[in-house]
Amino acid sequence: MPAIVECVPNFSEGRRKEVIDKIVFSIRSVPGIKVLDVEMDPDHNRSVVTFTGSKEAVQEGAFRGARAASELIDLNKHKGQHPRMGALDVLPFVPISGVTLDDCVEIANKIGARIAKDLKIPVYLYEAAARKPERRNLENVRRGEFEGLREAILTDESRYPDYGPRMIHPTAGAVAVGARMPLIAFNVNLNSKDVAVAKEIAKNIRASNGGMPNVKALGFLLEHKGMVQVSMNLTDYTVTPISKVFEAVKKAAEDRGVEVAESEIIGLIPLDAVCDLAAKYLKIGNLGSNQVLERRIWG
Amino acid sequence: MPAIVECVPNFSEGRRKEVIDKIVFSIRSVPGIKVLDVEMDPDHNRSVVTFTGSKEAVQEGAFRGARAASELIDLNKHKGQHPRMGALDVLPFVPISGVTLDDCVEIANKIGARIAKDLKIPVYLYEAAARKPERRNLENVRRGEFEGLREAILTDESRYPDYGPRMIHPTAGAVAVGARMPLIAFNVNLNSKDVAVAKEIAKNIRASNGGMPNVKALGFLLEHKGMVQVSMNLTDYTVTPISKVFEAVKKAAEDRGVEVAESEIIGLIPLDAVCDLAAKYLKIGNLGSNQVLERRIWG
Repeated sequence: MPAIVECVPNFSEGRRKEVIDKIVFSIRSVPGIKVLDVEMDPDHNRSVVTFTGSKEAVQEGAFRGARAASELIDLNKHKGQHPRMGALDVLPFVPISGVTLDDCVEIANKIGARIAKDLKIPVYLYEAAARKPERRNLENVRRGEFEGLREAILTDESRYPDYGPRMIHPTAGAVAVGARMPLIAFNVNLNSKDVAVAKEIAKNIRASNGGMPNVKALGFLLEHKGMVQVSMNLTDYTVTPISKVFEAVKKAAEDRGVEVAESEIIGLIPLDAVCDLAAKYLKIGNLGSNQVLERRIWG
Repeated sequence: MPAIVECVPNFSEGRRKEVIDKIVFSIRSVPGIKVLDVEMDPDHNRSVVTFTGSKEAVQEGAFRGARAASELIDLNKHKGQHPRMGALDVLPFVPISGVTLDDCVEIANKIGARIAKDLKIPVYLYEAAARKPERRNLENVRRGEFEGLREAILTDESRYPDYGPRMIHPTAGAVAVGARMPLIAFNVNLNSKDVAVAKEIAKNIRASNGGMPNVKALGFLLEHKGMVQVSMNLTDYTVTPISKVFEAVKKAAEDRGVEVAESEIIGLIPLDAVCDLAAKYLKIGNLGSNQVLERRIWG
């Protein structure tokens, strides 16, 4: 079964549809690439493209997207609410099936070197691909944005890029290239109207407060439902499985005399994560996604 | 996303590979057909082919397979351990994705009528496609096999076919055409060496003893593992979900002071069944298989 890598480039253009169309067309021109989603955001003046393909195909698609963006977007003329430093602003690679996070780090390095060399754009490696600990966090990489980085990259050693020239591209800026696990947006709704319960549980389970690794969590009131919600982003389901997160929230709620009403997966979830969930609850040692009938048809 | 129907024809030939190759070639010749598996069994002198496709494609594939079998297999010369009445012996259609069991009943009727008319082979509708209650059970349809049916079909009104001539085809016999839900083979292994525990639990949960509908269950000793096993076939996971079966076995075991060690899915499982499992345990109202990332890529 073929390996699947996902690539989610963010471009600094969310208003001129003809520009995004051209960029997406250039990505799609690579055989084997499947564009799953294109989100244009006029307020942020930013677009997020999601595409998948083999290791080789996603690299070529990413390069063609980067090249098209560098030709069509001028950061000097760009304004929007979202922080940005490049025409192609961030370029993460995500392992979906038959590839590892390390494979995606390798891809980030290869394509980062190519963008730097062929397009003369400085490249910063971030998240799992970061070579310096502070660059794991995208905010540090992008500090000062296009305008600030234009100065800093010249003189501040800590802002030197991982690949490419020590000056930003005059119109296309710089790009952050990285690797990360698929993000799963998972919410658990509780039969309570007391938002303090959800906030407390969120605080206890999130990684940043010493809870479970790779869990981001916030508590909200869902007024229309008369419930509160623990809203989470799971940034590596192989380290902290969804089942473990759900059971932790459930237990924490029960400890406070509150019941779980329902939960929801927002957006897409990788097949391996669904199989892992089923396997965990049924005590199946290993439910390979290759046991899923449709995978035999499609894969 | 396209509908997927599975078709699992059983042919009365398990020794002459060249014959099965020709039959499979004729099925595969239909655009859009994917042959997932071919199992030849020399002792039973029988082969099971598993293929999938759209509603239209599986009908055409099934017809071409039936025609090839009627040209290549002579039941008068066939011997094997498995009961059989036709060159193409049984032809079940199974809804996998985007189709219902009723759709498959309709397919069984269409293709049954066509086989009867074009190939002059009598057709019996069985399982969910049966028009008479006693024909839901394949054993009743096939009673007496090729040799016995040859006589019975002429005079016994209860053995008249649903489509086609009231005489069997001289070499290809008769065929049972049906519709059923996907079968899930699910075993739960218990931390006990007392096979009586597994047999008792199996007896309590199986449909035939008044347990859960669409559950077949037997108890076994797994000598090499030092465990006992409740071995099940789930014949409609939409009526009796896997999670419900697992929890029932777990509870019955705990009531007897025994723990569940592990469970296993044997063979393939439809994506919808895996999503249903995940949804049940996490209290997700509806985890559509269209939320599975790979489905967006492949489907």
